Amino acid sequence: MYIAIGDFLNQRLKQAGITYVFGVPGDFNLSYLEQIEADRGLQFIGTCNELNGAYAADGYARIKQLSVLVTTYGVGDLSAINGIAGAFAEHVPIVHISSIPPLHAVKHGAPLHHTLLDGNYDHIMNCIRPFTVAQTRLTPENIVDELDRVLSACLRYKQPVHIQLPSDITHIRIKQPTQPFQYQHYQTDKDYLKRVSQKIQSKLQEAKNPVLLIDHLADKFGFASAIQHISEKQKIPLAILGTAKNIISESASYYLGTYSGIASLPNVKATVETSDCLICFGTQIADINTGFFHYQLPENRITIQPYSVSIDDENFEGIEILGLIHETFHIENDSQPIHQSQTLTIKKNNPRDALSHKTLWPLIANFLKPNDIILGEAGCSSSGLNSIPLPFEAKYISQPIWSSIGYTLPALLGTLLASPQARHLLFIGDGSLQLTVQEISTIIRHQLKPIIFILNNGGYTVERKILGQQAKYNDIQNWRYTELAHVFYGEARTFHVETLQDLQDTLSHLENDTSQLTLVEIKLPKLDAPESLNKFGAVVANYDYGTYAMSKFKH
Amino acid sequence: MYIAIGDFLNQRLKQAGITYVFGVPGDFNLSYLEQIEADRGLQFIGTCNELNGAYAADGYARIKQLSVLVTTYGVGDLSAINGIAGAFAEHVPIVHISSIPPLHAVKHGAPLHHTLLDGNYDHIMNCIRPFTVAQTRLTPENIVDELDRVLSACLRYKQPVHIQLPSDITHIRIKQPTQPFQYQHYQTDKDYLKRVSQKIQSKLQEAKNPVLLIDHLADKFGFASAIQHISEKQKIPLAILGTAKNIISESASYYLGTYSGIASLPNVKATVETSDCLICFGTQIADINTGFFHYQLPENRITIQPYSVSIDDENFEGIEILGLIHETFHIENDSQPIHQSQTLTIKKNNPRDALSHKTLWPLIANFLKPNDIILGEAGCSSSGLNSIPLPFEAKYISQPIWSSIGYTLPALLGTLLASPQARHLLFIGDGSLQLTVQEISTIIRHQLKPIIFILNNGGYTVERKILGQQAKYNDIQNWRYTELAHVFYGEARTFHVETLQDLQDTLSHLENDTSQLTLVEIKLPKLDAPESLNKFGAVVANYDYGTYAMSKFKH
Repeated sequence: MYIAIGDFLNQRLKQAGITYVFGVPGDFNLSYLEQIEADRGLQFIGTCNELNGAYAADGYARIKQLSVLVTTYGVGDLSAINGIAGAFAEHVPIVHISSIPPLHAVKHGAPLHHTLLDGNYDHIMNCIRPFTVAQTRLTPENIVDELDRVLSACLRYKQPVHIQLPSDITHIRIKQPTQPFQYQHYQTDKDYLKRVSQKIQSKLQEAKNPVLLIDHLADKFGFASAIQHISEKQKIPLAILGTAKNIISESASYYLGTYSGIASLPNVKATVETSDCLICFGTQIADINTGFFHYQLPENRITIQPYSVSIDDENFEGIEILGLIHETFHIENDSQPIHQSQTLTIKKNNPRDALSHKTLWPLIANFLKPNDIILGEAGCSSSGLNSIPLPFEAKYISQPIWSSIGYTLPALLGTLLASPQARHLLFIGDGSLQLTVQEISTIIRHQLKPIIFILNNGGYTVERKILGQQAKYNDIQNWRYTELAHVFYGEARTFHVETLQDLQDTLSHLENDTSQLTLVEIKLPKLDAPESLNKFGAVVANYDYGTYAMSKFKH
Repeated sequence: MYIAIGDFLNQRLKQAGITYVFGVPGDFNLSYLEQIEADRGLQFIGTCNELNGAYAADGYARIKQLSVLVTTYGVGDLSAINGIAGAFAEHVPIVHISSIPPLHAVKHGAPLHHTLLDGNYDHIMNCIRPFTVAQTRLTPENIVDELDRVLSACLRYKQPVHIQLPSDITHIRIKQPTQPFQYQHYQTDKDYLKRVSQKIQSKLQEAKNPVLLIDHLADKFGFASAIQHISEKQKIPLAILGTAKNIISESASYYLGTYSGIASLPNVKATVETSDCLICFGTQIADINTGFFHYQLPENRITIQPYSVSIDDENFEGIEILGLIHETFHIENDSQPIHQSQTLTIKKNNPRDALSHKTLWPLIANFLKPNDIILGEAGCSSSGLNSIPLPFEAKYISQPIWSSIGYTLPALLGTLLASPQARHLLFIGDGSLQLTVQEISTIIRHQLKPIIFILNNGGYTVERKILGQQAKYNDIQNWRYTELAHVFYGEARTFHVETLQDLQDTLSHLENDTSQLTLVEIKLPKLDAPESLNKFGAVVANYDYGTYAMSKFKH
């Protein structure tokens, strides 16, 4: 049986679990968009621009484990690339389909618009290569092999792939393979696995104070709950890195807290750093999760990464992690971890007082519910959310490593489509919101009903905490934020919050009603920030600019 | 005398003519932004995001011949790169200063946020290299040489350069060079110039029907008016390519029209194609200026590029073009070309009729004034403006080669700051506006007063003309466009235009009043487009998708 290439691509995407395709039309992708629109199993979600499309695809994939973004050559690809790079840094699997000029033009180096007129059709792939885990330029003769290769790489490494689809091949029919696409999980040779597992077991048996340290890759590769079970079953304390917020229940029996080097609570720091058998799961050391490299993990430790293990000085490549966990701890991944919900005791404050981060986040903590999807924008929002316990069953999404401001608003579009039954809450500052604001329009277009908390503090407060407290460059234009839905031809329930009382009233209004798009503008003083940001600012400034420069500034 | 590196950089930029610096704050550029803010000769213009910043810098440089964009490493650079690539493709000189992590972190490959945590600090420069004409990573020991090298390259080739400024060196003091920055124009050896000039003169003397063909590089490199003088003085007909709209007065004595291969008017086509001495000035052959390569220029021709000349089969490198023009034609560049203004005769139409592109553009033509700055967004707007004569003294800005939709709105911010006395008119479709809409906020923030015509035709009409006339993927969310200024905390005079009468009334209101920001929403049918786009659509579709694919679509 023969099938048109675009239809074959769509079939493969559906077999990999795709329902929505994000993107922006452009002259090189229209014939493929025709095939998407004709496919009853797929829906095209046009975003206002390509960067927002990439962010939306990122949000979607964080819930659905895979997403698709379609752009047009050059202009579209380069507009989206920052979103692709972010997904690479954060291990989010996006299939980026770039519709490129027709093969005849590519082969002859034709000087087309959307190019540099230099006949070089490799610039874009070269540009995007470091930010994708596999790349291909499809042709009728290679698609059957190439497509499954890159889709598998995307699922295997949980990182974006780049597929170039020439505009003139979408309707050429190829012989359809008899087998549907099926991702083959890597499996490690049993004897090899047993050897590595025994080494871990014997280290653990000798240990007096073992500790588990978990980072975000444990979540991205789907073994976070297995680790929580190990902790429960073996009674081993477990800590997370700051880049792994909420992937482990903070009410778990042996939960220690967040290890962040010098910035850790003393007992967490001592327990982790003096462990005689520290097992790190999917850890990625970075400035932001180690107090800017002020940390001291025991030299002899076990590090378990998605496809490799190191035990002290020995390295073992090709270890499948769930297989190893099962072999070592006899634990299944899919059993539900124990969890108890937490309620914060709120200090009594004068309800007429202006809000501050100190009073804001505890109230937010008690407003959150299990099964919420919570997005925290880089800066005050993610710092505030990091400071409170989140309901463990809630999904928390932020972008701590790539930290591209503006990310979460389009990502919210993606999470809304990925999980339409859940309540979605976005916390975003005014500065960040302005980068990608137009995606509220797409949220309205699809009748989606998130609650968006806009923290209006008159500019880039996270930067003010580093340098330029009163500098003009950290100021932004004030907007009428609650009127945004109206200008985008939608309706929203809107709230202005300035005092504690306002916030309490607003939250109780919202408590049981998720039937409307909601915009909550929260006024905050421009120099007020969560406590961790207050501390973080000076550390960053010293790291970035050096003490010589900092001696010139009065802080 | 010693000077801090950031101050030295600012001094050099001011010596090169810079007043405004566009950009977005980020943790790696704050100490440099402090130095910009402290500099009375510079003003930082924060844009809502980095892509918009790059577009604004592009618009500014198209008038001022140089501009500066400041971003932060990784996230900022990759957000801006599509704007940098567009400036490269269109020959617009932007100094892109990327503030990168501190040198100590770069040297040791520290895993910082805004990176891939892989310790590789070459990704971004590699990524941006094909889209910039020079690159450098500044250090205290190399800055004196490197900075002047890249600034000169920017001015020499009229294309962007990429400067990496490590965050920890901005306040280190270096020994200040005694000489200010001064761009050294390339000059060709007189004997060599004479030899080439004589060859051109002898070809011209033998010629019976010489023709001059001019493209946009003639404008970008500042020799467009010299060519018009050659035409007047030597009585040689001159034609432009479609990528050179309005760089030559369309009322000049020997002006032929636009050559665009098969899409040219018959007399233009015949005159150009049968010339026995065609002299091409700064021509860049592309799909969009040759009727998708259906063109036939005489094989024996002279091509004069900014730094090289080819005469039939002979090539001469290192020819400085203004020197050559002076030597060959004894013409100075700075004399004013002859020009007469044109007024279109408007056909009588029923004033109550709904507007269409056919009736819209002639009225716009007569509304335009000398010294206006006119921006035409890719698609219906630039096609419409291409179909009418523009006042020659007006500056026309579009992006025909890179054609990135959304470009013109932030570019307008740049032109407004570059030329505050002029009247600025933007023509942009609804689809394009949505990509970069937030820059209206920055226009408001700086009390700028352009007239923005928003052509609301319910989606991507330029794409509908290629494929998917009624397809959903070409639809967009409708907005309350005239309320945009209000939501961005500004005020605007607003007009809704649906009929000829509405338009006439609106234009006469606006005729002599440029004291307010003005938003004019013009409703147009979703399938109505300027005539050239109607023809262009099918040609593009066949070129992009091939006849095989096109046979599947009912057009």
